[in-house]
Amino acid sequence: MNEFDLIRRYFTRPVPPGYLGAGDDCALLPVAPGKQLATSTDLLIEGRHFLPDADPASLGHKALAVNISDLAAMGAEPLGCMLGLSLPKVDEAWLAAFADAFHELAHEAGCPLVGGDTTRSPDGIVISVTVFGQIEQGRALLRSAARPDDDIWVTGTLGAPHAALQWLTRQWPAQPALLAAARPALERPVPPWRFAQRLPGLAHAALDISDGLLQDLGHILKASGCGAILYYHQLPIDSVLEPLDESLVREAVLSGGDVYQLCFTAAPRNREAIAELARAFDVRATRIGVIESGAHLKVHDAAGRPIPISSRGFDHFA
Amino acid sequence: MNEFDLIRRYFTRPVPPGYLGAGDDCALLPVAPGKQLATSTDLLIEGRHFLPDADPASLGHKALAVNISDLAAMGAEPLGCMLGLSLPKVDEAWLAAFADAFHELAHEAGCPLVGGDTTRSPDGIVISVTVFGQIEQGRALLRSAARPDDDIWVTGTLGAPHAALQWLTRQWPAQPALLAAARPALERPVPPWRFAQRLPGLAHAALDISDGLLQDLGHILKASGCGAILYYHQLPIDSVLEPLDESLVREAVLSGGDVYQLCFTAAPRNREAIAELARAFDVRATRIGVIESGAHLKVHDAAGRPIPISSRGFDHFA
Repeated sequence: MNEFDLIRRYFTRPVPPGYLGAGDDCALLPVAPGKQLATSTDLLIEGRHFLPDADPASLGHKALAVNISDLAAMGAEPLGCMLGLSLPKVDEAWLAAFADAFHELAHEAGCPLVGGDTTRSPDGIVISVTVFGQIEQGRALLRSAARPDDDIWVTGTLGAPHAALQWLTRQWPAQPALLAAARPALERPVPPWRFAQRLPGLAHAALDISDGLLQDLGHILKASGCGAILYYHQLPIDSVLEPLDESLVREAVLSGGDVYQLCFTAAPRNREAIAELARAFDVRATRIGVIESGAHLKVHDAAGRPIPISSRGFDHFA
Repeated sequence: MNEFDLIRRYFTRPVPPGYLGAGDDCALLPVAPGKQLATSTDLLIEGRHFLPDADPASLGHKALAVNISDLAAMGAEPLGCMLGLSLPKVDEAWLAAFADAFHELAHEAGCPLVGGDTTRSPDGIVISVTVFGQIEQGRALLRSAARPDDDIWVTGTLGAPHAALQWLTRQWPAQPALLAAARPALERPVPPWRFAQRLPGLAHAALDISDGLLQDLGHILKASGCGAILYYHQLPIDSVLEPLDESLVREAVLSGGDVYQLCFTAAPRNREAIAELARAFDVRATRIGVIESGAHLKVHDAAGRPIPISSRGFDHFA
């Protein structure tokens, strides 16, 4: 199978009216008048972000999901995506599983694959995804927009992806039943992209929790020139963590990355509207803290006592 | 140096008004009302597309140039780009040279770097570039738009990048002086992006010559349902090839890839306007053949006799 056949067989699907998909020098996408293009890109490298025997369907899903999560974190509406794929060999079963899962999420999110690049790599698999979205001029949810007295919210639950990764990489003692329960959160994250598109106007700052709650919230605080208190007892800890030691739970919940849910801030007057929006889109949204003047980031227990925090999430070059 | 410092030091430059650059979940770019987004992506893998000791400045330039070439091939105006970079280690001299050359071309082409992703790779360097451009609705130069009786044009000269690559990889006997003369065409291609933005309305089909003239023109013919005659004696053969055997020249000119110039078709009535445009933008534009009804691709010599052709360019999975 040559390069053109491979693209045709696995990656060419019909695109919506007004689009030009794979097959020319560029793809063409519509951006509505008055809207800005929002775009984000991720590189996934075998041996760094996934193991050689990783399930191809999970990879295909997650490679796109992490990028759709970035659009959600701006409040943008998905428009389409590009895929760069470098493979040591053409493995048709692998390609079919990868492509099916990728296209399934793309279809569900209204984010059709419009083009890309395939090539052969001497070493491992490399996956590069770039997403495009649109958002009305000036309405994007920026990291710099948090204000003192804002509530801090998160969607979904915290900790399960980190726990799954620790069990998979044997950094935590084996717990097969818990791993099975936690694994979908790591391998098939579903960012709340529909809910997120309705947040502009209700929320101020937002980002997705890819590097861990403390580190990611820290980005909001730094960009906004604010401090924050988190209420540990209000955090939506994933139920899979219940049987674990408190120290492991804290690590997973406060510093565990790969969550691909949103952390956002909003004025207290919007509490009811946000709760209603969450109900309408079947999203769990939890208030977990408050933005304050200052530059601190503190975590309080139920009695209002500070919990010591150290680990600050993940840095690729640390 | 951590990931955030690395991005700040080497890849964060001011972006134009109306843009949001690196530092948030997505970059934001303006797309003018009535215009479509044009986008293209390329993956460059060490050991496949470049050698471990490749000059970082050439890599930085070329990684962006090949993508700007795709915008030019649609007649689109560059808007911005994203860079994914995976490195086995942080080498500051390498990064500085790569980033300077990348930013220099980005600045010249009005294609600012607005965001990206950096990560550590276990094996070689991986470079992923995605470009964004805009073009008025319905004006893009599609591969499918060639019509019988159109002239076939190319910009620039043919053959030098292929020759440089053969000498560098020792597939041709060493010719140090010729290699030195040919090398810039391989390592620092300059696609005619300004000229290309004025082609919509004058030209019909266009693409860039990345895989070799015959293979790339073949894409136009297939997409347009046409045939073509090329006049070999009219091809703008790069002067660096003059001392070579005719068989090597033919291989380089007809099948040599990596050219990143345009091949386009246009009605004969636009000959003078295209020649004038080329003069205005200091681009060499040469008529090299004619589109015909049918499905053939023939190359004729000066006496109108067919030249046998075989090699059809480059396929990553062949």
